[in-house]
Amino acid sequence: MNLLIVLKTLGVLLLCESAAMLPSILVAVIYNEDTILAFVASLLITAAAGALLFMLKAENNMVRYRESFAIVTFGWLAASILGALPFLFTGLFPSFLDAFFESISGFTTTGATVIQNVEALPYSLLFWRSFTHWLGGMGILVLALALQPALGAGTFQIFKAESPGPILAKLTPRVSDTAKILYITYLLITAGEILLLAGGGMPLFDSMIHAFGTLATGGVSSKNMSIGAYDSVYLELVVTVFMIAAGANFALYYRVCKEKNPAGFFQNTEFRIYLSVIAVYIAIITLNINGEVFDSVFTSLRYASFQVASIITTTGYTTADFNAWPDLSRALLLSLMFVGPCAGSTGGAMKMIRIYIVFRYVQREVNKLIHPRAVKSINIDDVPVQENVLSGVMAFTILYLGIFIAATVLLTTQKISLFNSAAAVAAALGNVGSGLGLVGSSGTYTHFTAFSKIILSFCMLLGRLEIYTVLSLLSPQFWKQ
Amino acid sequence: MNLLIVLKTLGVLLLCESAAMLPSILVAVIYNEDTILAFVASLLITAAAGALLFMLKAENNMVRYRESFAIVTFGWLAASILGALPFLFTGLFPSFLDAFFESISGFTTTGATVIQNVEALPYSLLFWRSFTHWLGGMGILVLALALQPALGAGTFQIFKAESPGPILAKLTPRVSDTAKILYITYLLITAGEILLLAGGGMPLFDSMIHAFGTLATGGVSSKNMSIGAYDSVYLELVVTVFMIAAGANFALYYRVCKEKNPAGFFQNTEFRIYLSVIAVYIAIITLNINGEVFDSVFTSLRYASFQVASIITTTGYTTADFNAWPDLSRALLLSLMFVGPCAGSTGGAMKMIRIYIVFRYVQREVNKLIHPRAVKSINIDDVPVQENVLSGVMAFTILYLGIFIAATVLLTTQKISLFNSAAAVAAALGNVGSGLGLVGSSGTYTHFTAFSKIILSFCMLLGRLEIYTVLSLLSPQFWKQ
Repeated sequence: MNLLIVLKTLGVLLLCESAAMLPSILVAVIYNEDTILAFVASLLITAAAGALLFMLKAENNMVRYRESFAIVTFGWLAASILGALPFLFTGLFPSFLDAFFESISGFTTTGATVIQNVEALPYSLLFWRSFTHWLGGMGILVLALALQPALGAGTFQIFKAESPGPILAKLTPRVSDTAKILYITYLLITAGEILLLAGGGMPLFDSMIHAFGTLATGGVSSKNMSIGAYDSVYLELVVTVFMIAAGANFALYYRVCKEKNPAGFFQNTEFRIYLSVIAVYIAIITLNINGEVFDSVFTSLRYASFQVASIITTTGYTTADFNAWPDLSRALLLSLMFVGPCAGSTGGAMKMIRIYIVFRYVQREVNKLIHPRAVKSINIDDVPVQENVLSGVMAFTILYLGIFIAATVLLTTQKISLFNSAAAVAAALGNVGSGLGLVGSSGTYTHFTAFSKIILSFCMLLGRLEIYTVLSLLSPQFWKQ
Repeated sequence: MNLLIVLKTLGVLLLCESAAMLPSILVAVIYNEDTILAFVASLLITAAAGALLFMLKAENNMVRYRESFAIVTFGWLAASILGALPFLFTGLFPSFLDAFFESISGFTTTGATVIQNVEALPYSLLFWRSFTHWLGGMGILVLALALQPALGAGTFQIFKAESPGPILAKLTPRVSDTAKILYITYLLITAGEILLLAGGGMPLFDSMIHAFGTLATGGVSSKNMSIGAYDSVYLELVVTVFMIAAGANFALYYRVCKEKNPAGFFQNTEFRIYLSVIAVYIAIITLNINGEVFDSVFTSLRYASFQVASIITTTGYTTADFNAWPDLSRALLLSLMFVGPCAGSTGGAMKMIRIYIVFRYVQREVNKLIHPRAVKSINIDDVPVQENVLSGVMAFTILYLGIFIAATVLLTTQKISLFNSAAAVAAALGNVGSGLGLVGSSGTYTHFTAFSKIILSFCMLLGRLEIYTVLSLLSPQFWKQ
């Protein structure tokens, strides 16, 4: 393995991260907070580490499979470790592990928090916490590629290893151009949500926090009661629409704009299924909670829509304590934590397209029983899916469920009940953050043991990087020359 | 589809079933019970239905894929419906659905019961209940094939559609000979257990009941407290050893005997993994419950061994209320309900060999990330597994988990908590019977709603026939000409 190019690329990444701490310092200055020193120290340490690594001289800049997996996995770990410094240096977190948990939960857009009273945090720290979401949402290496196009000859490999979904769209011949297009689209939609929230009466600071959380499908808030704190139908509607938007493939926005064809959304199989699933789940849950939890159909629809959009996109914002809803609704919401939104979105979990491919694969196997010799290819948007993509998706699905089971069993060793263990792992692995049981809308991850926090942090990383990238490093084959 | 040969074969099956009611009548005579009339009526109705169907004249006796799936699925349904008659006619069951639930639970070797006080049942009914286990364990159509070799030209298809496991061993050129060998092996091992149990002080009647339940990995008992009622280390040990034996591939016994090579057991990959998994689970659970539930390592080992053997083989006998054990032990036992024992055994669930194939498949995909062009075949016992077997196993695993999730969601509509729903479905689909929560060792299925009982019955059938056989009938392709 070309270790020098791996380290050099991590250097670029950390330099980007140190620059990303500047806006938080600005917030600290504006609100005259005593966190300035903590942020400046974090920035300098991160920049120094980045510069040291960047100065390494690689003999060649070839990035192949191994290098790309190492860059992405270690890159996310390094960014989370250094991103924990502001949390640690302010003295508001009891341990490095808690600060790291908050940081990796931010970057992976999980939004699981160890903070019990969010409203007591300084603005600058709230900003950094949400900004990690925003950076992690579209991908920290995508950002590095957009800012530093001359990273190496294998930038496409890095892009591929970080991007969610089984089939990757390359929008332009140069990966750095694709990265730029994605980040500009992301920035514009985020700006749009900030305007709509602020225009609807949400304070500007809160609007930024929640727009970052929405677009990244992250879910940390500046309020203890999350979006529910505003009790505003308009604001909930804006957040719902933007959550659903953030769960779509960002490449689709670019293509629809470029081709000036709004119908393009509905010509996309994954997007159609995504909207249909949302509609069906909202309908069932509305009927299920109407009369049981809320008095009117409108109120039921209001809370069901928000929660379905929040969970399927793996955002994790809440407006109601859905943990107290009837078991059918709880079961359906739990199932959405595994499904997730579209590939190429900022959302987590398995992704709609994989569920669809798995469904078609199983259907083909059942048909094979009756016509063993007539094996047809599986088409998506009229393009046949390659057999190696199919086997990759099947293995991914099993791996996802296998990791879910293994991590749940590990958590039960920590005196956490079987149900609460499963709920916490589902929320961490799917990058949702808030879930059922102990980690419900009113719960936090404060009281989990250190071992549990390490397991859950690893689940978040596996979820965000879609398992394979991280797992390849654990394979003995990886380290053989 | 050749409907006439399907119906004619069902006729043979029902004639066999009516004959299988004779031993219960003998028990009723011996114990001078007033159930004789109920059994005679059941026998006559079953025989009449069988004879009517058998007299149908098929133009040809070709059994292809479709016919075999229809014969096996409808055969099991018909046997369960007519097998419910003795339960119904004695007047001890409140509805036909309850009698049917008990019957299908018996034939599928699940052992889920709606009876709260088993010890109040007549001996003849207890006998029939356990005998359905014994018949279903090795397969009711395997029995019909053994007794009626000239069933048709496609007996291998029927054998294949009913037999558990992804790869089928054909021991002899003629399927009817294989069926005979399997039933004789089964009969001999059952007789062996009856002798050992009766020799250890268990009443002869109880010994038969429990030997049927053990060998079939069924799990109904003549005692409310199951095997725990005897509180005997010797009897528990006998049952444990025979449960583990019943979870092995029966073809392996034949091969080992024929080749006079006892080492043959350990040359079999699946058997080796099966024993290793049992050993590891017993070790972890012993350590987990020692001190927490029981005072000594010996007592912990005693109860852990029995419960691990009972759950992995999907038998469901209990000697302790494992539902009250620590969550780690509960989680591990729950995971075993999905794993199951070896293919070709009388046990249910996914089977060890499939879990192993899935593991190897996933491993291959991870290696492909690093060496995309070096795709190696997956070998078991030095024989490469065909790619279409691999894809079948992957789809089976997903289907199994998908049906588990779907049925769990359906049960939550019946005011059963999410956890209890999941526990009941896992126990039914895996043909285990007793599980966690509501369906724990002290619980029964009495209080489930009619809708839940139908869903759970369907899960038992899907589990026993390993999904594909039943599911193919629900595919639109099946009914197209």
